[in-house]
Amino acid sequence: MKALVFHGPGRTSWQDVPDPSVKDAADAIVRVDAVTICGTDLHIVKGDVPEVEPGRILGHEAVGTVVETGGDVRTVRPGDRVLISCISACGRCRFCREARYGQCRGGGGWVLGHLIDGTQAEYVRVPFADLSVHPLPSALPSHEAVLLADIFPTSYEVGVVNGNVRPGDTVVVVGAGPIGLAAVVTARLYSPLRIIAVDMAASRLSAAREFGADATVSALEQPEQLVEDLTDGLGADVVVEAVGVPEAFEMCTRMVRPGGRVANIGVHGKPATLHLEDLWIKDVTLTTGLVDTYSTPLLLRMTAAGRLPGAAMVTHRFELDQMEEAYDVFSRAADTGALKVVLGGPQHDTVALPAEEQ
Amino acid sequence: MKALVFHGPGRTSWQDVPDPSVKDAADAIVRVDAVTICGTDLHIVKGDVPEVEPGRILGHEAVGTVVETGGDVRTVRPGDRVLISCISACGRCRFCREARYGQCRGGGGWVLGHLIDGTQAEYVRVPFADLSVHPLPSALPSHEAVLLADIFPTSYEVGVVNGNVRPGDTVVVVGAGPIGLAAVVTARLYSPLRIIAVDMAASRLSAAREFGADATVSALEQPEQLVEDLTDGLGADVVVEAVGVPEAFEMCTRMVRPGGRVANIGVHGKPATLHLEDLWIKDVTLTTGLVDTYSTPLLLRMTAAGRLPGAAMVTHRFELDQMEEAYDVFSRAADTGALKVVLGGPQHDTVALPAEEQ
Amino acid sequence: MKALVFHGPGRTSWQDVPDPSVKDAADAIVRVDAVTICGTDLHIVKGDVPEVEPGRILGHEAVGTVVETGGDVRTVRPGDRVLISCISACGRCRFCREARYGQCRGGGGWVLGHLIDGTQAEYVRVPFADLSVHPLPSALPSHEAVLLADIFPTSYEVGVVNGNVRPGDTVVVVGAGPIGLAAVVTARLYSPLRIIAVDMAASRLSAAREFGADATVSALEQPEQLVEDLTDGLGADVVVEAVGVPEAFEMCTRMVRPGGRVANIGVHGKPATLHLEDLWIKDVTLTTGLVDTYSTPLLLRMTAAGRLPGAAMVTHRFELDQMEEAYDVFSRAADTGALKVVLGGPQHDTVALPAEEQ
Amino acid sequence: MKALVFHGPGRTSWQDVPDPSVKDAADAIVRVDAVTICGTDLHIVKGDVPEVEPGRILGHEAVGTVVETGGDVRTVRPGDRVLISCISACGRCRFCREARYGQCRGGGGWVLGHLIDGTQAEYVRVPFADLSVHPLPSALPSHEAVLLADIFPTSYEVGVVNGNVRPGDTVVVVGAGPIGLAAVVTARLYSPLRIIAVDMAASRLSAAREFGADATVSALEQPEQLVEDLTDGLGADVVVEAVGVPEAFEMCTRMVRPGGRVANIGVHGKPATLHLEDLWIKDVTLTTGLVDTYSTPLLLRMTAAGRLPGAAMVTHRFELDQMEEAYDVFSRAADTGALKVVLGGPQHDTVALPAEEQ
Repeated sequence: MKALVFHGPGRTSWQDVPDPSVKDAADAIVRVDAVTICGTDLHIVKGDVPEVEPGRILGHEAVGTVVETGGDVRTVRPGDRVLISCISACGRCRFCREARYGQCRGGGGWVLGHLIDGTQAEYVRVPFADLSVHPLPSALPSHEAVLLADIFPTSYEVGVVNGNVRPGDTVVVVGAGPIGLAAVVTARLYSPLRIIAVDMAASRLSAAREFGADATVSALEQPEQLVEDLTDGLGADVVVEAVGVPEAFEMCTRMVRPGGRVANIGVHGKPATLHLEDLWIKDVTLTTGLVDTYSTPLLLRMTAAGRLPGAAMVTHRFELDQMEEAYDVFSRAADTGALKVVLGGPQHDTVALPAEEQ
Repeated sequence: MKALVFHGPGRTSWQDVPDPSVKDAADAIVRVDAVTICGTDLHIVKGDVPEVEPGRILGHEAVGTVVETGGDVRTVRPGDRVLISCISACGRCRFCREARYGQCRGGGGWVLGHLIDGTQAEYVRVPFADLSVHPLPSALPSHEAVLLADIFPTSYEVGVVNGNVRPGDTVVVVGAGPIGLAAVVTARLYSPLRIIAVDMAASRLSAAREFGADATVSALEQPEQLVEDLTDGLGADVVVEAVGVPEAFEMCTRMVRPGGRVANIGVHGKPATLHLEDLWIKDVTLTTGLVDTYSTPLLLRMTAAGRLPGAAMVTHRFELDQMEEAYDVFSRAADTGALKVVLGGPQHDTVALPAEEQ
Repeated sequence: MKALVFHGPGRTSWQDVPDPSVKDAADAIVRVDAVTICGTDLHIVKGDVPEVEPGRILGHEAVGTVVETGGDVRTVRPGDRVLISCISACGRCRFCREARYGQCRGGGGWVLGHLIDGTQAEYVRVPFADLSVHPLPSALPSHEAVLLADIFPTSYEVGVVNGNVRPGDTVVVVGAGPIGLAAVVTARLYSPLRIIAVDMAASRLSAAREFGADATVSALEQPEQLVEDLTDGLGADVVVEAVGVPEAFEMCTRMVRPGGRVANIGVHGKPATLHLEDLWIKDVTLTTGLVDTYSTPLLLRMTAAGRLPGAAMVTHRFELDQMEEAYDVFSRAADTGALKVVLGGPQHDTVALPAEEQ
Repeated sequence: MKALVFHGPGRTSWQDVPDPSVKDAADAIVRVDAVTICGTDLHIVKGDVPEVEPGRILGHEAVGTVVETGGDVRTVRPGDRVLISCISACGRCRFCREARYGQCRGGGGWVLGHLIDGTQAEYVRVPFADLSVHPLPSALPSHEAVLLADIFPTSYEVGVVNGNVRPGDTVVVVGAGPIGLAAVVTARLYSPLRIIAVDMAASRLSAAREFGADATVSALEQPEQLVEDLTDGLGADVVVEAVGVPEAFEMCTRMVRPGGRVANIGVHGKPATLHLEDLWIKDVTLTTGLVDTYSTPLLLRMTAAGRLPGAAMVTHRFELDQMEEAYDVFSRAADTGALKVVLGGPQHDTVALPAEEQ
């Protein structure tokens, strides 16, 4: 089969590789129908994630069709259309028993396209399939469903749920890339009074408004002042960090009100300064986390019901074998305006789709 | 009357001042029967708390007897023996309505011995008396009750409750001064599996064992290794920072397990480094906070029932007019072994006390 | 002034009575600008609430203008336009400190129009005014704001919050009178997947659809079957009882899924049968409660922002002195189609209102 | 092998049956080293549980040694000493993913000795072994560990956790049989102020005091009055029903304070009357539930650390082949004083035990 193989910093190729096969009774082999590229993949390609070894097939988000299962797989069978979660779960360790699958100690967690071969390929082996893939409602198109492999549960669990967004809240989302936008969309499930999006790029702020932000402000134009003005000087109830740089995190800790919450989603490469001399007295809760994907069934249900409008986040579509071009477009997001690029999709969907998708 | 007056950095005196009087219908005037000195008072004396102006009477913890009340005070009357909480509460603002009295916007919060005259005096005016003093069970001696004015609710609310200590947990308390020791005592209310205390001073570690720590380790002897060894390499469920310096806070963030909680109680004067490059993926919750004293009635009930053994924390007793000597002993804790010093107490208690107290 | 006086079962009159005056330093005297009638008022008139003594002025919901305050009232002053909450709160007892104002032990709770004179009058004395009235945003018309005196916080707190409605849930609301309709509206704040309303009256089911129910079913047409069908035989996540009769409550306990919640709002006069032989094994949570009105500031904020569409619930408008006619229309709801009747309102609003209200 | 076989109402025999064998890749075959009898087993023998068919081997609590495992069992291997949980868990269904194993839809839940052959035998087949057995610390004797197969997690999860016992609470436990006593022991993990046990039998009240109840009262001597007296007329914070008859449940609902919780553990065969005419206004939470055993690892850790003193609950010991005699003694508890009877135990423990056990 063909797959995108990492060959060390800066080097990848879409090339022939051996087909995957069942190695463990809990495995499923899935034919990839739609796949996307994550910001994390760009970091891997740059060489920022040293655990990823040369020869690894990248990718941890996909929709596909089960073609083979190990003897211990009970909940899906060949022919089933499934979402492949970015997180695999052994289902047996203490963390999996608490639904903290991202912290799995039994061989799961984030392994696809990281510690084992991933989804940017024609076929992929998914370990612990029963807890790591989700059957898809037939009416949900693949290019929309694939957004639930990572970014939607990440933004919802690590941003919105950890941040404890509640009706009437003022929520600030710092960073309006795909993760930040998904935080805007999923925060709305709890009816905050207002969502304020902050970013450097005007195009992303415009996207934020489209996805439901009530106010937007450039990171360069005193966003803290706006938050203060809108909250009678108190600060935001919840601030979501969706960037991953110290300056953004520190801004979040300045924007939060006494008694408020800062939920970090951003992937950080450097430490930040925590101004405890101001914060010690302020009743602030800060959270960090890797997604667990416990919410994926819920988000699928809501998406299928038309209640989580994410499809518009897919700005570019490609065939699966245009992988290198897709990487190029996605990596030059500032120029191309790319939010999420999806390879494959409806043309591979073998199921009945609503008219507008056909 | 006599009172301890702050005259600017490094200068205080026990001197004659005018008696306080009712200025607002919600005020109570309380005769001070027992009072203690807080680490924060030492910071004020040093000049670290610029809001405290020269001329201010210090102190925010006391037990006393109500001698006069404003027309709007409904729950206590002259003659009542009361605990004076370190936090006053207007009872009307949005924070008070959520029992976040420490963040009161209506003139309360931490004001005694800070923004208004405090308790290190023969008499004190307590604003918003209904929500700021607590009637005392007669059998509870004053020198024990006074520990509930600040340190016990602080350690319980900001350390144990914010840290969400649960049965079976491994809890690390970094810092075994009075606040850390009170965190050890109150953490035990939730039956953790083990409490590990960390400090530099052998005498404080010994005190920690007395107050219920299951293991102790010097901050200089690789406490992180001990925590790792005792938790199969996982880390602690809850880590409580009770020091207030960046090094201690940073150690806490290294000791916590994935999915664990770091509860900061320490009063910090400088920023800390937050290693988000490690923590972003680790599902960690960090909390800060000023005490609200919502738990004071509960802690009083438990102390009166003999369920919160704190009295042994009082290492030194003085008469009220030995204020300057008491400050001296408390400020040289490393030499004197002082944990809490109490001025006044049983000899002033006009109530029947258990035999051993008389 | 004029007021609606209860003269014993079946007898009320709109008559001259003495004007109220400040009796306690915490009182406010409020001129009533808009007032409504509650189902509970009908019960009182029938004689079902024996604590209500002849001579009592009825009513516990109103919007008005403060005309006088006692010396201890700090947060409102004469001239302020306020919402009068159905619950008064002393702010000092253990229940008020937990924001359980409905259970106040200090002279508050539900007292207006019950144990003291109420709001169906030209003027009313409100005790503990600081915690019992809420300043109103000027743009919020009185006839809409008055819905927040009782039914909206009741449905939200006792139905939606106690029932723990969450995104993706299936919620059943049994009873589509004003309380049930307000439960539909406020449940939507948490984005359930679907809300199913059950009632006997087709007109109320139609109203339920208008206020946001996704499905409706007559109580006579096997509502349990519909719930089963829509939930793959599992049952509803949350069932809200908004009727107050044993049959309705018992239906709720049959509709709830294992692990689900039944939140009772209905005012019951008789016991129900609890089928513990079925329920003991089913992980069900049942809650009861009187409203506390802790959520009123939040609901006011959301209503003012246009996020809680309740105004359409006001089906009939009257002048204040048409009280007896309003009672008649409201008491014959089946014939008149009355949901909420409001007396007074915009014509009395001295504030600038949006164009469509003038 | 030998096993206790149910032959229809009133008829059981300890007889030869075929050895169990692995039927599914997730199965383990466990040699039974210690087993106990549950009150539920007596109900089955009487014929009260119609799903149990003649020919069924009874028993759902045991400690044993794994002798064989299916190909899909990953966490235990032959030779491991394990606790067999009363609840089996598929680990894949929506309820298992929320750790609600008792409600498992994938073939687990309470199946042992109910829908499949159970543990009152020399060997037992345990389905879904990875999530249904727990490796035992070697120092924990079998006759103590076996109490964690059912009664301790049941009392803790369904009584103490559902009842939300908190420090300082007044807790009433109605019923002082094994389940009620385990509720007393596990409630103490949260440091309630006082635990009041209610029962008809003086011997059980005496046992309750031994296990940590602070006060006891006969069900015939106005227990409600005692609760009222001890709580200033308010009622108990938490009431645990551990009997399973309507009268006991109804007493619980009369004893609970406004804002309190009633947690039902009792297995009921008949409906109770729920006095909604009193309770609707009282802010009461009622919970029911089957144990999930999510807490078993925690309780094992605490028991191994000597923090959950349950061993004294074992009043009678037998050899495994004295099954019929053990049933006789247990079924005549009023005469024999039996709390828990254990068959097998230390003499079968092949591990090093503390001196006092040898």
